[in-house]
Amino acid sequence: MIIVLKPRTTEENILRVENMVRARGLETHTVRGEELTIIGCIGDTVRVDPRLFEVDKSVEKVMHVQEPYKLANRAFHPEDTIVDVAGVKVGGDHMALIAGPCSVESEEQVIEIAKAAKESGANMLRGGAFKPRTSPYSFQGMGLAGLDILCKAREVTGLPIVTELMSAEYLDLFDEKVDLIQIGARNMQNFDLLKQLGKTKKPILLKRGLNATYEEWIMSAEYIMSSGNPNVILCERGVRTFESYTRNTLDLQAIPVIRRLSHLPIIVDPSHAGGKWWLVEPMSKAAVAAGADGLMIEVHNNPECALCDGGQSLKPAKYDTLLKEIRQIAEVVGKKM
Amino acid sequence: MIIVLKPRTTEENILRVENMVRARGLETHTVRGEELTIIGCIGDTVRVDPRLFEVDKSVEKVMHVQEPYKLANRAFHPEDTIVDVAGVKVGGDHMALIAGPCSVESEEQVIEIAKAAKESGANMLRGGAFKPRTSPYSFQGMGLAGLDILCKAREVTGLPIVTELMSAEYLDLFDEKVDLIQIGARNMQNFDLLKQLGKTKKPILLKRGLNATYEEWIMSAEYIMSSGNPNVILCERGVRTFESYTRNTLDLQAIPVIRRLSHLPIIVDPSHAGGKWWLVEPMSKAAVAAGADGLMIEVHNNPECALCDGGQSLKPAKYDTLLKEIRQIAEVVGKKM
Amino acid sequence: MIIVLKPRTTEENILRVENMVRARGLETHTVRGEELTIIGCIGDTVRVDPRLFEVDKSVEKVMHVQEPYKLANRAFHPEDTIVDVAGVKVGGDHMALIAGPCSVESEEQVIEIAKAAKESGANMLRGGAFKPRTSPYSFQGMGLAGLDILCKAREVTGLPIVTELMSAEYLDLFDEKVDLIQIGARNMQNFDLLKQLGKTKKPILLKRGLNATYEEWIMSAEYIMSSGNPNVILCERGVRTFESYTRNTLDLQAIPVIRRLSHLPIIVDPSHAGGKWWLVEPMSKAAVAAGADGLMIEVHNNPECALCDGGQSLKPAKYDTLLKEIRQIAEVVGKKM
Amino acid sequence: MIIVLKPRTTEENILRVENMVRARGLETHTVRGEELTIIGCIGDTVRVDPRLFEVDKSVEKVMHVQEPYKLANRAFHPEDTIVDVAGVKVGGDHMALIAGPCSVESEEQVIEIAKAAKESGANMLRGGAFKPRTSPYSFQGMGLAGLDILCKAREVTGLPIVTELMSAEYLDLFDEKVDLIQIGARNMQNFDLLKQLGKTKKPILLKRGLNATYEEWIMSAEYIMSSGNPNVILCERGVRTFESYTRNTLDLQAIPVIRRLSHLPIIVDPSHAGGKWWLVEPMSKAAVAAGADGLMIEVHNNPECALCDGGQSLKPAKYDTLLKEIRQIAEVVGKKM
Repeated sequence: MIIVLKPRTTEENILRVENMVRARGLETHTVRGEELTIIGCIGDTVRVDPRLFEVDKSVEKVMHVQEPYKLANRAFHPEDTIVDVAGVKVGGDHMALIAGPCSVESEEQVIEIAKAAKESGANMLRGGAFKPRTSPYSFQGMGLAGLDILCKAREVTGLPIVTELMSAEYLDLFDEKVDLIQIGARNMQNFDLLKQLGKTKKPILLKRGLNATYEEWIMSAEYIMSSGNPNVILCERGVRTFESYTRNTLDLQAIPVIRRLSHLPIIVDPSHAGGKWWLVEPMSKAAVAAGADGLMIEVHNNPECALCDGGQSLKPAKYDTLLKEIRQIAEVVGKKM
Repeated sequence: MIIVLKPRTTEENILRVENMVRARGLETHTVRGEELTIIGCIGDTVRVDPRLFEVDKSVEKVMHVQEPYKLANRAFHPEDTIVDVAGVKVGGDHMALIAGPCSVESEEQVIEIAKAAKESGANMLRGGAFKPRTSPYSFQGMGLAGLDILCKAREVTGLPIVTELMSAEYLDLFDEKVDLIQIGARNMQNFDLLKQLGKTKKPILLKRGLNATYEEWIMSAEYIMSSGNPNVILCERGVRTFESYTRNTLDLQAIPVIRRLSHLPIIVDPSHAGGKWWLVEPMSKAAVAAGADGLMIEVHNNPECALCDGGQSLKPAKYDTLLKEIRQIAEVVGKKM
Repeated sequence: MIIVLKPRTTEENILRVENMVRARGLETHTVRGEELTIIGCIGDTVRVDPRLFEVDKSVEKVMHVQEPYKLANRAFHPEDTIVDVAGVKVGGDHMALIAGPCSVESEEQVIEIAKAAKESGANMLRGGAFKPRTSPYSFQGMGLAGLDILCKAREVTGLPIVTELMSAEYLDLFDEKVDLIQIGARNMQNFDLLKQLGKTKKPILLKRGLNATYEEWIMSAEYIMSSGNPNVILCERGVRTFESYTRNTLDLQAIPVIRRLSHLPIIVDPSHAGGKWWLVEPMSKAAVAAGADGLMIEVHNNPECALCDGGQSLKPAKYDTLLKEIRQIAEVVGKKM
Repeated sequence: MIIVLKPRTTEENILRVENMVRARGLETHTVRGEELTIIGCIGDTVRVDPRLFEVDKSVEKVMHVQEPYKLANRAFHPEDTIVDVAGVKVGGDHMALIAGPCSVESEEQVIEIAKAAKESGANMLRGGAFKPRTSPYSFQGMGLAGLDILCKAREVTGLPIVTELMSAEYLDLFDEKVDLIQIGARNMQNFDLLKQLGKTKKPILLKRGLNATYEEWIMSAEYIMSSGNPNVILCERGVRTFESYTRNTLDLQAIPVIRRLSHLPIIVDPSHAGGKWWLVEPMSKAAVAAGADGLMIEVHNNPECALCDGGQSLKPAKYDTLLKEIRQIAEVVGKKM
């Protein structure tokens, strides 16, 4: 952390700021220039809020130098983390290929989709049982019954299941039944929920919030990790911009940036990002070419009748073709599929 | 709702789309033009997700015409809602003047601030007991002990208390002890929490999410109202933009827009919006001039030592001066203080 | 400027970076810490691009400490600049009250509006002769004929005239005929045009770009000032965000921020910001309460038939009422009208 | 275009709006519903500004149905446009591989880079002679001397040259000397300049503005095309978001979206988007996988000493490796290199 003092700060005031820093357990190194005096703060700066010093009348600004996270930081853990989801590896050169409907609608539906997706090469099944919906009047998901259908589909196909947890109330149940617990974009900073995720060791799929910076996203992973669960997979799903033609703007720079800042795996959800089925194919290819550790794609056997997000779902045949093309790109960038 | 069909859609396809609409309980009126065929959908469109139709191969786009909310909609409730917070009225020509520290730090602190704020004209006391913090390593608030301190300060000053609820787990306790339950920006779309707020009739202060549209914000109010609690106050606190000099960009157009779309009161939090104490005074004046139903302002007796957000807090003397100036502007725009 | 080096940078590499800095005419002060080595760069940093050093393999990041502008910087010019527009003062406690139609459509129209606006208290007349339009098929303005109509209206009413310059080609003509030359949001970083504005001493009204940071905006003023024209007035007109209900999001925090960073006057255009006539009144009041040095408002005698932006124009009678209310708020904040 | 009327609009008012529409040369088809009356407007709606009708007191909203552009619209020109840049084809399955330094600094520099880039497979040479810089104190480019150096490099290598035009003043000269005239992001809506580009038939490389929607971007192409120059290539270079770790957020969804809406070629500039050299490789691969018609990449023989943007430049050896990998991905997606 670096504290820049106002021009012409007196020695007395410099001393006061230095003491304030030391009171927080940090060491200080001060550079006195004619126009510019700066105090370098050295020590465990992650635990000190820079905003505390900004208040002082002699302080011009306070700048972070080191990332405010540790457990998720690649600097302290140089090799890639590989998360094991019920036997399916994610990270390193292993790709997560997650497919399934937006919402669980019926046993027949889910099993049919799961079989087809597995046939095409998917290695996990997704499906929403509890659905976060902007409107209280929209379909809110089948709830616990939906969860049971997913379990049934796992039994039939052997695919590990991924589904969204919206409240700590169901955490024990998810811990028992679900293989990869998804935390949705709108709950990325539901800090209370994040803290509770340390109670399980089940892998967590942490979606990026609609306007979350890379740092905030990694900090949310740090919440989960610091509460005791190191098994976090990040998922880029688009951020909100001024462009309204697409649902969100998919930020594929997130892949190399996260890879540089953190050792956690990062996958991409092109279905929610664009909100249009015809964007899924080019964006899936792009994500893999950029080095993504996996893809989460909505697949529906009858999108026209889907209760939710049919417009962004692929039919099983299209998904099959897509995976064939993806495989060739994965090879070029050194990923196994 | 209006469905625009693709150019040159056949009669057979038009019929199919019409049937799809009718199957959802809506009536259809179709206009056939040479270049353009549109289906007007009439009925209770609030309960129908327009995305359901976008999937059809003959559909070009689907456009909402009516707002997707009812209970919060001014069209169905033309007069202003006035929310009663333990005897303090908010809305109409009544202003909420909420003041207090970001975090509860000690009994002495809170009581001293509360007394001073009341003296200046504040009619509610705020203070964080549970704090949503981006970092797991930052001060997370005093928790239940903080809540008790707020209650003590209410006892001493008579000011109703406002504090943030982060998890449904504490809802019963808040229902018992708190006068105005705040839902923070990061939980604005924690739908599970919103639904639970119908269990109480205590007024809810619903902050706008950092990237929430007006419609999404009102929809979150609709969640609370449709679950059984009509006492919602909205709070604008800045949205996230590309500008990083200020913490967030305060959107004061929200005041007249919300007033037009909804009958709920809307107040403004200039402290969190700008993140700098010297922005609080001009933005408070601006908010009142624009017609805000209240102000929530951080006041701290010793900002230099605040455990959180000291840099955006006013000292009691500054708050006192501010309220005097605000009073003159309130008069011009017809508000009582 | 501060250069943060990578952890464990060798002395040899530190020396190389120091030399690189000195080669640009700056002095260096280096702090060596265990985890952190920083080089403070002292001297005329405004003329050195920090990105030049980011390239070095030993450099972690480079941070600006001082603002990259001088002539527009309040630090070097503490008192408010007051710009004189053909006798009308703008800045300090003097307010610019600019009114008129979006586009000049006819002599009758402009003169009728100008007379009414003057009657209500306006002290400048605006009107577009050359119009920047997103579509090549939209009305592009009357061009030179429009300019002559504005001059005629000035003759009749005595109001100085404000109109937009879109190309350096007409600069001499504008210099001769126009009192306040407007540079539109879309040309805020048309650097070639900005540089040419030093050829005149006529005051320039520089609108903020739709996604311009405060710093970029002030830098565009610096372009004009450094080319020889110190008479710049800034105009906030809304920035682009994810919210699409309003045309743009008016950023009134810009007023106190610009006032702190720069000595130049800042006025507000609430008509273009919201794009809806009913937002003009509350936002005008808010702007004045926040300390704006003026308002630029679209006034049209027949908005229903306007060739451009009728939907955001006030009728003369509404403008008259607005100015009466504004006057009371101006008094509270110490401005003359 | 669809006009939605306010609930309970009288027949008289409906008639007035219909007449207003017909006065603009459009036909009307009106649907009368109990809650909802809509007027479908049919005809050459591209030439009618929908904002003209929004002003009417009976109008709730006006919605565009058809895109407001024609010449650039794929609906009227289904096959891909292939632009010929001095013999190098761009579009269809032909890739533009543009490489070179941000700024022209010397003849030796440019020729050395050009030779190396050509060797690696580049088919055009880029280099800035006139540089748009945020600060008036930054290096503004070598100007005309820079242009001559580029011509020299073309003579030596045979590579067509691409460089940015900032002012119509130099258009004749560019027409004579340059092969592909670049219009920068900050001039994307410099409408005056766009209109002048019809004076030449030289291909134009139109960069996307930092906050331009797809529609606005295509409309700027439409300006050029409607003024008489059909040879436009679009270039995605990142948009501005709240994320500040990267310079901009590269929007690769732009590739399939533009391809759907327009027949014009679209290339990607990953160097400016991310602003970091290590993002260029993964984003180049992603862009090609998503179907881009080309890549514009900054290559510098000595980035540490570059006068501009060295931090985002690749060294020739890295560029060489990159093109080899790109070639494999291009093959998978059916592009020739």
